[in-house]
Amino acid sequence: MQDGDLRHSPFTLKVIGLGSEGRAGVTLKAQEALGSLDAVIGYKLYMDQAEPFIRPGAQKIASGMTAETKRAEEAIKLAQGGLKVGVVSGGDPGIYAMAGVVFEVAAALKVPLGEKAGELSLQVIPGIPALAAGAALLGAPLTHDFCAISLSDRLTDWEKIKKRLDLASQADFVIVLYNPRSHGRPTRLREAADILLKNLPPATPVGVASRVGRAGESAQIVTLGSLNVEEVDMQTILFIGNVSSFVYRDRLVTPRGYVRKYGVVA
Amino acid sequence: MQDGDLRHSPFTLKVIGLGSEGRAGVTLKAQEALGSLDAVIGYKLYMDQAEPFIRPGAQKIASGMTAETKRAEEAIKLAQGGLKVGVVSGGDPGIYAMAGVVFEVAAALKVPLGEKAGELSLQVIPGIPALAAGAALLGAPLTHDFCAISLSDRLTDWEKIKKRLDLASQADFVIVLYNPRSHGRPTRLREAADILLKNLPPATPVGVASRVGRAGESAQIVTLGSLNVEEVDMQTILFIGNVSSFVYRDRLVTPRGYVRKYGVVA
Repeated sequence: MQDGDLRHSPFTLKVIGLGSEGRAGVTLKAQEALGSLDAVIGYKLYMDQAEPFIRPGAQKIASGMTAETKRAEEAIKLAQGGLKVGVVSGGDPGIYAMAGVVFEVAAALKVPLGEKAGELSLQVIPGIPALAAGAALLGAPLTHDFCAISLSDRLTDWEKIKKRLDLASQADFVIVLYNPRSHGRPTRLREAADILLKNLPPATPVGVASRVGRAGESAQIVTLGSLNVEEVDMQTILFIGNVSSFVYRDRLVTPRGYVRKYGVVA
Repeated sequence: MQDGDLRHSPFTLKVIGLGSEGRAGVTLKAQEALGSLDAVIGYKLYMDQAEPFIRPGAQKIASGMTAETKRAEEAIKLAQGGLKVGVVSGGDPGIYAMAGVVFEVAAALKVPLGEKAGELSLQVIPGIPALAAGAALLGAPLTHDFCAISLSDRLTDWEKIKKRLDLASQADFVIVLYNPRSHGRPTRLREAADILLKNLPPATPVGVASRVGRAGESAQIVTLGSLNVEEVDMQTILFIGNVSSFVYRDRLVTPRGYVRKYGVVA
């Protein structure tokens, strides 16, 4: 892999977002990056999505779902060995995904980042986040101020998550809930909904988007008061409306307020 | 435009996100949609970005920046007249962009949405949001819970925006500020920063991403205490770090906490 140019070039590591809509949701920039690499690393599901764009002959390294630090470290080592390396991520790598852990590991290992020989050129290529694809399926729930909160307490203290839920619902944000439920902590979503119900009326509309961009994709709208937490799983994202959100036909809309201010002609 | 099939088909309106990285940031799905339409409507800047993908012979209707309701209404009327119509939007159409206003106008006009003849098939095609592209430029500032707040008070009460800033900084969200400053309200960002400084230390890192995906793109990292509001304009997005955010080399990183929990091998 080493050639004359490399002696004067940085090492290459790209964290590549594949988006949330299968092959059709991949950007041209991500496609071109995948075609230029010597090795691609990722969770198996995302390796399958990246497959059509990977250069023939490139190394493909599929890993398990919870091996994030190991995957990041392996990618950095391979890149420092002279391979052009990519880490693939579903959705956008910068939102609850691999970009953060790659930088965390790079910092812990004191890897010199930069564009000079011997440094690691570490680039993030964004993808369509699940919150944008889920919102599109549901209508337009995110066209005003919003927040994203993960209910996973694997790495975050549950008390801190509860505080965020309380303050976010006081602030009238549209609230996007990631990782709402798992077998290991089946009661978290019920607890979260009860916190939200202290500040929001039971009639608050809630968009439920499941398996966005994958087989079995679905979108439905319920209310906060009637949310059946037993029907929600880890592959679901929830959109809790703000005070202005409304349901029109089968769509969830958070108005920015254009019609209220400017009216319509017809 | 009318043909036999149309009598049994719904009318077609697509709100299409072009992403935040020029031509290379457009997804295959958005490209295919643009190639299938009879008329495309949008703000001039975005029409230029969409141009290479629009079907030859399709109508192209460029409009001014603040004509959102008029643009939405025109698009709906054209679609109900039998044309397959697209509204293009920079970034993601569902985040502070055209998807919301199209649904607002459709609801105000009581347009029947659906997939049957005479109904309007209204579909949103997501794009890479500016917050994802800006985050990628800066490093990985958004890999934990975050919120997005627009400082534009054109359609939102300033008191409500101030309350959101206060509660969001108490909740330890990473805070993304859209529309931070304009000629019409030059002091809003200073007021916002002062609210944040009540809850956050002056050393809090702030990512400043300007003209993301366009000529003159830039990214720099400052601190909340040293932020020079005079250097920020409407084409800038700010990323206010949370309590764990750190700067490594020239990148802004909000750790999820993987390294703290699992360590690194090397």
